Amino acid sequence: MKPQPTAAILVIGDEILSGRTLDSNSNYLANELTNNGINLSEVRVIGDEAKKISETVNFLRGQYDYIFTSGGIGPTHDDITAEAIATAFNVPLEINSAAVDLLASHYPNGKADINSARLRMCRIPEGATLIQNPISKAPGFSIENVFVMAGVPSIFRAMTDSTIPQLVGGDPLLSISVRIEKGEGDIATKLSEIAKKHKEVSIGSYPFSQNGRYGTMIVARHKDKDVLNKLERKLQNLM
Amino acid sequence: MKPQPTAAILVIGDEILSGRTLDSNSNYLANELTNNGINLSEVRVIGDEAKKISETVNFLRGQYDYIFTSGGIGPTHDDITAEAIATAFNVPLEINSAAVDLLASHYPNGKADINSARLRMCRIPEGATLIQNPISKAPGFSIENVFVMAGVPSIFRAMTDSTIPQLVGGDPLLSISVRIEKGEGDIATKLSEIAKKHKEVSIGSYPFSQNGRYGTMIVARHKDKDVLNKLERKLQNLM
Repeated sequence: MKPQPTAAILVIGDEILSGRTLDSNSNYLANELTNNGINLSEVRVIGDEAKKISETVNFLRGQYDYIFTSGGIGPTHDDITAEAIATAFNVPLEINSAAVDLLASHYPNGKADINSARLRMCRIPEGATLIQNPISKAPGFSIENVFVMAGVPSIFRAMTDSTIPQLVGGDPLLSISVRIEKGEGDIATKLSEIAKKHKEVSIGSYPFSQNGRYGTMIVARHKDKDVLNKLERKLQNLM
Repeated sequence: MKPQPTAAILVIGDEILSGRTLDSNSNYLANELTNNGINLSEVRVIGDEAKKISETVNFLRGQYDYIFTSGGIGPTHDDITAEAIATAFNVPLEINSAAVDLLASHYPNGKADINSARLRMCRIPEGATLIQNPISKAPGFSIENVFVMAGVPSIFRAMTDSTIPQLVGGDPLLSISVRIEKGEGDIATKLSEIAKKHKEVSIGSYPFSQNGRYGTMIVARHKDKDVLNKLERKLQNLM
């Protein structure tokens, strides 16, 4: 079995912290990472502050195998992620001619439409590799183990979809879900005994309430199908 | 003007990191904090690991005025937040008789229905204050500047609603939004000039696309209404 690399997501944006915008990007990427055998270990959300972005990126990239950022690479004054990443890696931020070509292809008059604001989106840290943006062309980029992507959800998803196949993942965990129409408090003692006997399996318990019925969804994750099949029968006995 | 205290949210749960569940609790609380003059500075999501929870809580509570946690206080084996918080504060975790009374009131046979699993939900760090749970009675708790709340969204919201009025907030920032039917790249240069002249105002720029129309929403935040009114006219000139 191939071991799973670890990952962290860094969501950047005052609009998330103020509550104006609900972050759905990390949930999208979390699912993609799980399906591809990469273990998402941490998510952080921070504001548009250059120093905080640089410091957090530098901390996370030392802790985890892959770091993904969301947000702050547009054309306006509050888009400071590219600059902060260049600072974190201590490399120059430069106008990338391939990025200019990509962006020019998006506008009717080509390069003539690339004003100084749009040119901001072509500033890429030296040595970085571009991440394609099929929606509005302005690219993201990766540098070492850090993948820098846009915050606009449709663009973030497109960048995720083009990035994921390039990553080396481990064997994805398989999972089973058992729905039990009893409250957590009624099954927790027996469930705990089962969990103790199967310490190699990650077993989560999640209460639900749906159309006036309440109950517990038990989710077990492991790499081996046979282990999960045996466990599934035990869990069904909780009903 | 009263200065704004700072806050962080710590979301705890493997189900968020695996992508199974989208966290909406931090967005709910973010809005409440903003409306009450508390500056949410950071959100972190981590998994169900006792050591990581204790360490993160201890780090965050030294950095920010208020810390809020979401998740991991139910009756099952994977609910380890209360224990981890007791470890972080180096205090015993004990059966809290007031919590037992609250929980007993939720069941037809009162205390006779409090089995060992449900009793787990009554383990509260010594010295903590209970946070009421009008939905299913099992309380959250606060200890010093850390507020420990349930992950189930309806319960998290109810706990937030009962906690917020007890916090000391600063003067909430006022905000204006100006909708401009032009792309960010078309207005960014002029917007940047405005932002430079109004460094005391936090100005964010957010692209949108709605029913095939795209444009930019500009959001400005400041404590003074007159400052915002003047700025609003300038921003409208970008149209």
